Amino acid sequence: MIQTVNQTVMHSYPGMVALVTVTHKGENNIMAAGWHTYISYDPPIYGVAIGRERHTYQMIKDAEKFAINFVPFENSSLIQQAGVYSGSRVNKFEKENIRFEHGSATNSPILHDAYIAYECEVMDRNSYGDHDWFVGKIVQFYKDKDKFYKNGLPNFDKLTIPLYLGRSQYTCIGKKSEFVSHKIEE
Amino acid sequence: MIQTVNQTVMHSYPGMVALVTVTHKGENNIMAAGWHTYISYDPPIYGVAIGRERHTYQMIKDAEKFAINFVPFENSSLIQQAGVYSGSRVNKFEKENIRFEHGSATNSPILHDAYIAYECEVMDRNSYGDHDWFVGKIVQFYKDKDKFYKNGLPNFDKLTIPLYLGRSQYTCIGKKSEFVSHKIEE
Repeated sequence: MIQTVNQTVMHSYPGMVALVTVTHKGENNIMAAGWHTYISYDPPIYGVAIGRERHTYQMIKDAEKFAINFVPFENSSLIQQAGVYSGSRVNKFEKENIRFEHGSATNSPILHDAYIAYECEVMDRNSYGDHDWFVGKIVQFYKDKDKFYKNGLPNFDKLTIPLYLGRSQYTCIGKKSEFVSHKIEE
Repeated sequence: MIQTVNQTVMHSYPGMVALVTVTHKGENNIMAAGWHTYISYDPPIYGVAIGRERHTYQMIKDAEKFAINFVPFENSSLIQQAGVYSGSRVNKFEKENIRFEHGSATNSPILHDAYIAYECEVMDRNSYGDHDWFVGKIVQFYKDKDKFYKNGLPNFDKLTIPLYLGRSQYTCIGKKSEFVSHKIEE
């Protein structure tokens, strides 16, 4: 039964983790962000919360651009590595041998193994509590078309999507998952 | 292989849907929101994107408070109903026989069947493209403690979490899902 509790409850997961990338003054960095969402479809706008203590924070604040990358379940160890290590101490692209190309619109790293990526230009930033909320206009889309049906839904015969659970635990949605339709005929 | 595409790619799902509730001037309403996230842990702050054409939009804008509710997979048809019907035409609580109590902090409906809920006071709102981004300070937490372990992770023997896929399709994370740990020992 649901009841009031006197401690913070943070129910962000299971959820997709965004790999946030940036290139600034010749330095490339990548971090894992669990708090992120689409905000607007037309024009397309994406938001991501970044802690001000993160190495990536200052880079994106200065560069005013970034990319969002999503990788499949078979690359989910990369998500954990991007989340644990700091770009102030290691070059995560070299350490993890992460292959990428610089995006054409923002120069931000687009991962070879991503199945979806967006390049974003920062259009707003606000400090809320212990994070800053970056709002980015999406200026270039990337997609691995083979992994999706024409209607936009993932083809789970070809793509398994990792979801973070918390405490270094991951799960996934794939061809073995249960699916139901709740279509309402009005 | 990932490549640039010249059309909008919206990869928000699979993801949890937030049931956003509000009570204003004696009227109760509920809507489904796919674009929402935690923004700050300390203090706890939550954000949600709401289309300006939604009946809920004006109510939350005026009330300056709302609640976020998460319901289990067995109630996922409710998510679809909250998303399809408009509170301007039907009282969704009566139509769907949704049981709730008014939250102690904001008077917003807290669903009996929710397993987690937050009451929020609006602390900021910005228009970005076709949605407004509401930022809410969480002022009261609710939890169905039986469905979680002490470490905060869901007990999937007792809770199956619904995820929206798009196009009225839902999937879930539960005891039959695949789990992996990517714990890094530094």
